Amino acid sequence: MSVVESAAVIGLGLIGGSVARDLAVRGIRVSAYDADSSQLEAAMRDGVVSAALDASLAGVGDVELVVIAVPVDAALVVLRRVAAIASAPGVHTRLVTDVGSTKEKIVAQASAVGIGPIFVGSHPMAGDHRSGWRASRAGLFQDAPLYLCAPTDASADAIADITTLWRELGARTIEIDAHEHDVKLAWTSHLPHMIAATLALSLTQGGVGRSELGPGGRDMTRIAGSSPEMWTAIAMDNATAIDATLAAAEREIRRFRTALRSCDEQGVRGQFVAAKQWFDAG
Amino acid sequence: MSVVESAAVIGLGLIGGSVARDLAVRGIRVSAYDADSSQLEAAMRDGVVSAALDASLAGVGDVELVVIAVPVDAALVVLRRVAAIASAPGVHTRLVTDVGSTKEKIVAQASAVGIGPIFVGSHPMAGDHRSGWRASRAGLFQDAPLYLCAPTDASADAIADITTLWRELGARTIEIDAHEHDVKLAWTSHLPHMIAATLALSLTQGGVGRSELGPGGRDMTRIAGSSPEMWTAIAMDNATAIDATLAAAEREIRRFRTALRSCDEQGVRGQFVAAKQWFDAG
Repeated sequence: MSVVESAAVIGLGLIGGSVARDLAVRGIRVSAYDADSSQLEAAMRDGVVSAALDASLAGVGDVELVVIAVPVDAALVVLRRVAAIASAPGVHTRLVTDVGSTKEKIVAQASAVGIGPIFVGSHPMAGDHRSGWRASRAGLFQDAPLYLCAPTDASADAIADITTLWRELGARTIEIDAHEHDVKLAWTSHLPHMIAATLALSLTQGGVGRSELGPGGRDMTRIAGSSPEMWTAIAMDNATAIDATLAAAEREIRRFRTALRSCDEQGVRGQFVAAKQWFDAG
Repeated sequence: MSVVESAAVIGLGLIGGSVARDLAVRGIRVSAYDADSSQLEAAMRDGVVSAALDASLAGVGDVELVVIAVPVDAALVVLRRVAAIASAPGVHTRLVTDVGSTKEKIVAQASAVGIGPIFVGSHPMAGDHRSGWRASRAGLFQDAPLYLCAPTDASADAIADITTLWRELGARTIEIDAHEHDVKLAWTSHLPHMIAATLALSLTQGGVGRSELGPGGRDMTRIAGSSPEMWTAIAMDNATAIDATLAAAEREIRRFRTALRSCDEQGVRGQFVAAKQWFDAG
């Protein structure tokens, strides 16, 4: 017996699609919407989604759980629409979450649009560079760390229910303040993505294709294949924190360059030794 | 029947140790030297190396093939010693190679010390972040691209023999001019390593441990665990070409930062789209 019996998933990409699969497997009735109708049709054909919502999202009032799984800029728009429906009398909606990589803005907006008590933001650390329904899979959240960010006016019931739900899907939930989350993620996730893109762009300048790289270089550029739309939205949402992390990277590159240009072998070694110490510390 | 019946491997790390294993498996008598006697003892205990050379390397005159597998700065010193021995009358040495990640200096030095006709530089693209005898393994070179850089005075026999030998070990040999190799590798291998170290050092500044990263960030920092000695030697050897690649990376980071700070969403998207185009091109 799950926490909910019905859910709506808005956005059937890698994360949203995988949530839909995991819910359906557990006997939860899943309706869904995707702006790309081919994604929605595929999910229905695969027997995961049993009902299609239209662009008005009016149907979310008929389900208990709403999962917003669109890029973080679009998520703010969807949240406003969902809030308008979920605030009406007589609806079944009693739990709303999202799965975006930034949390401060959406958590603040949940309170601002009056659904703070039934909203808890989620961020499963389970994405990769692929996207779309075809990249989604059951079991994606097994053992994945998952951040939960509650608005100040979230209800204890909402927090308890979303926690139970994600744990049923195998995730390891971590409650964290939304602002703290965004600063932390700027380092742990957004910076690596910006650096992967930086390396890809540099290699473009050098006229070097990905097939010419060794295994190390290929690993380092894998996430450069991520969705530009999704990452543009994340970068703009968390621009200040990300800029601070890029400033650190720029300093370290300059340090390398200064040492190389002055034949400062000790300087170069110091950088590599410190990098390996960080690596060895795990 | 192999190209040679006896070989000496100088340096029993990941690459040298794997060469020794692959040669021994094919019935070639392998002697070896490693400045760390515990590595040498382990290789003898494992039945791969049948005779230990002393630090004078005098024994290389008794074998047909010499493989220099030490960091690229030490390799120049070892090559000089090997040349002095191999140039003496009556020795068996008729083929000398190295396995370093930079080639211009060692190829020029081979000619300068008079063993150009029997020297061909090798660079197997088969390393990873591990090092030492214990990281070595048979079959490491199977399907690995392997650059061959011959001095201008190399003999056709030497080039043919080293090519045959590496192909027996499964490598895909590619002949290339040594200078061209170093410029190319600055982009395809050295830049990714410097960027992995840069990311590690940035995360150190941010107080973030490797265990806090997602799969993408972990992949991106794996080669930050590489040997500092080996990579300091490579960086100093190829400093000018590497500096040019780091200049490109610095420019791309600045471009991201400028766009983020001026809320230039189109600018940020343009960067991500170009990075993905490069990725999709393969």
